[in-house]
Amino acid sequence: MRKTLTIAAFMLAAVSAAAQQALWGVPTIISPEVRDDKTVTFRLNAPAAGRVQVTGDFLPTEKIKTPFGEFDGPGYADLKKNEKGVWEFTTTAPLEPELYSYTFVVDSLKMTDPSNVYQIRDVGSVTNVFIIPGGRGDLYSVNDVPHGNVSKVWYKSPSLGMDRRLTVYTPAGYEGGKDRYPVLYLLHGMGGDENAWSELGRAAQILDNLIARGKAQPMIVVMPNGNASQQAAPGETSEGLKAPTTQLPKTMDGSFEASFPEIVNFIDSNYRTIPQKASRAIAGLSMGGFHSLHISKEYPDMFDYVGLFSAAILPNQSVQSPIYADFDAKLKRQFDRKPALYWIAIGDKDFLYDANSQFRKTLDAKGYPYEYLETGDGHIWKNWRIYLSEFAPKLFRK
Amino acid sequence: MRKTLTIAAFMLAAVSAAAQQALWGVPTIISPEVRDDKTVTFRLNAPAAGRVQVTGDFLPTEKIKTPFGEFDGPGYADLKKNEKGVWEFTTTAPLEPELYSYTFVVDSLKMTDPSNVYQIRDVGSVTNVFIIPGGRGDLYSVNDVPHGNVSKVWYKSPSLGMDRRLTVYTPAGYEGGKDRYPVLYLLHGMGGDENAWSELGRAAQILDNLIARGKAQPMIVVMPNGNASQQAAPGETSEGLKAPTTQLPKTMDGSFEASFPEIVNFIDSNYRTIPQKASRAIAGLSMGGFHSLHISKEYPDMFDYVGLFSAAILPNQSVQSPIYADFDAKLKRQFDRKPALYWIAIGDKDFLYDANSQFRKTLDAKGYPYEYLETGDGHIWKNWRIYLSEFAPKLFRK
Repeated sequence: MRKTLTIAAFMLAAVSAAAQQALWGVPTIISPEVRDDKTVTFRLNAPAAGRVQVTGDFLPTEKIKTPFGEFDGPGYADLKKNEKGVWEFTTTAPLEPELYSYTFVVDSLKMTDPSNVYQIRDVGSVTNVFIIPGGRGDLYSVNDVPHGNVSKVWYKSPSLGMDRRLTVYTPAGYEGGKDRYPVLYLLHGMGGDENAWSELGRAAQILDNLIARGKAQPMIVVMPNGNASQQAAPGETSEGLKAPTTQLPKTMDGSFEASFPEIVNFIDSNYRTIPQKASRAIAGLSMGGFHSLHISKEYPDMFDYVGLFSAAILPNQSVQSPIYADFDAKLKRQFDRKPALYWIAIGDKDFLYDANSQFRKTLDAKGYPYEYLETGDGHIWKNWRIYLSEFAPKLFRK
Repeated sequence: MRKTLTIAAFMLAAVSAAAQQALWGVPTIISPEVRDDKTVTFRLNAPAAGRVQVTGDFLPTEKIKTPFGEFDGPGYADLKKNEKGVWEFTTTAPLEPELYSYTFVVDSLKMTDPSNVYQIRDVGSVTNVFIIPGGRGDLYSVNDVPHGNVSKVWYKSPSLGMDRRLTVYTPAGYEGGKDRYPVLYLLHGMGGDENAWSELGRAAQILDNLIARGKAQPMIVVMPNGNASQQAAPGETSEGLKAPTTQLPKTMDGSFEASFPEIVNFIDSNYRTIPQKASRAIAGLSMGGFHSLHISKEYPDMFDYVGLFSAAILPNQSVQSPIYADFDAKLKRQFDRKPALYWIAIGDKDFLYDANSQFRKTLDAKGYPYEYLETGDGHIWKNWRIYLSEFAPKLFRK
């Protein structure tokens, strides 16, 4: 074998491999640039553009008009073109520690930042993300702590008549260990799927960090797919690479709730769980809060901890399901058994705020105990990450 | 609890939730539209744009000039603006079944397709993908067959002094079963990581489909991170959301190869493997082919099956490592033990074609048996998906 090539040839090979392989060159500008002082600069190399804006949840909100009324949406800021044709915008003040989303708008065309490969899909849209470290930003970051594993796992659902996929977080030490763990079942909202909590929700990072700090018990977290018509997230089924939609059948008709014991049985059969009520929690956001409410009251011996995050508490008399029948009696049965924690959280700008207030009045009137957290903002992932961060430390303490 | 709201209110809630949450509206145009006749239309709603092109590997290649010479790169095609301001391009002929990548170029600015959430990162760039069904396209698709699970798993590497992450595919039936399985170790190329084979390589889909058709033995597939300086893929370590790079230290200096028994021990300790040479394979693309070559000859009793996919067979006398010493003697020792399969594949336009020819001459001169597959095209993922699809069925047949 000839031994004539040198390290220079190695690098040539690597570079030419990239030239053959990548459709894009490696970006030559840095965007976003997150500085130590927590200011951020966004950059886009677009010499031909007439106007470049950035929009994202790091900017003050602006009103969005919809057929259903005005809502707070992410704000916009203009980038300025420098002498090299690179557009730039720097935040005027330090940003609070947080995980933020943004996109560019170039001559009215929304586009992701080609210099930032970190993107998250939310239903049918993709945005870039960045993290301001410190405080909550650190909780959402991967830190140098022991890491749990995240698995995409298929299980059989006889009641829904299909194989279905869920996400399982097992805490550091699970693999290769012998201990048994409590389980948090964590449910997504409308348009979400089994990927939502681990991607948008940073669930693995939050749990890794809380557990490493001794603030949460080591636990398994199971993130199922709550759309009963769906096997798995878009792109992960035989339906192919179809556009995601919020308009799915069988999302809030009792099917998913009725099938839930299958999931618990699957997890208890295949993981080293503590298979008892005191070691099970269920929580969900929006539609997942609605599911958590109904599942926990339908199976009152299954979960000792219940979390309703911006829950879609929307009574609906047009949907016929045994799950939704006898609401008051089932709720009484649940609270007669004194759940260890019934926890409700919502933002003061959430369109579901009034529905949640109404539900709390019901609980108050009956003397059913619950804990309540009210935050700012509306129906957004920022709040749901906060709620998970606040809820998880309260679990499995009895 | 009041029961006054109806299904209409439900939908209103869902729509307004989306208005609060999403930065983008749901795309109203379909792109790409893959038709039954295998033609494809790309669309972009960009009334203000002056020129819109699509570039991707579904188009005839064009020459790219680099400081290192000319290479084949993806071609370009112009979209035309229709009366609604939507730009369109339809392929002139049906496309071969395949997984394709593309992006748009709007007035010289590369951007992903906002109507297509299916994107894959390749080192520092993100492209959209689509699949033409039939043939190989079906092999790369999620079909209605039993699915294996995919896990992101952390293990301790004492030799590299860090916790590191790898991807594990366990075949359908593993979860909840008792059988033991053979293991394929599948390695990525320069700039890749433990996500490359499961994302760009469609490894889970290929294995699911081959196993379901009875064309491959059920097997565990382990996809490690081959960058010895790195704990995990970009964004999955405490380095934060930094831009990915191909310029990593310790990629081909013997460190990863020397640490490899740690990975095999971890897998054999934590999974139901058949822990013997006849039930282990190792294969890799480009740098991963280089790693596979050296690991398999360094540990001649570990792997009975070896696959070199477009392998970076670049002898380098400037790198000092015991792994690379005594090449001829170690290769002899490996072939004296008669590996069940030594398999080499490369494209006829690959910049590593000559290096692979030279290596085959060495094997021929020594009378070391191997199988060889030569395809068209160069150093691209299309070939590596083909090579995995051809290699996996040959494994664990003895």
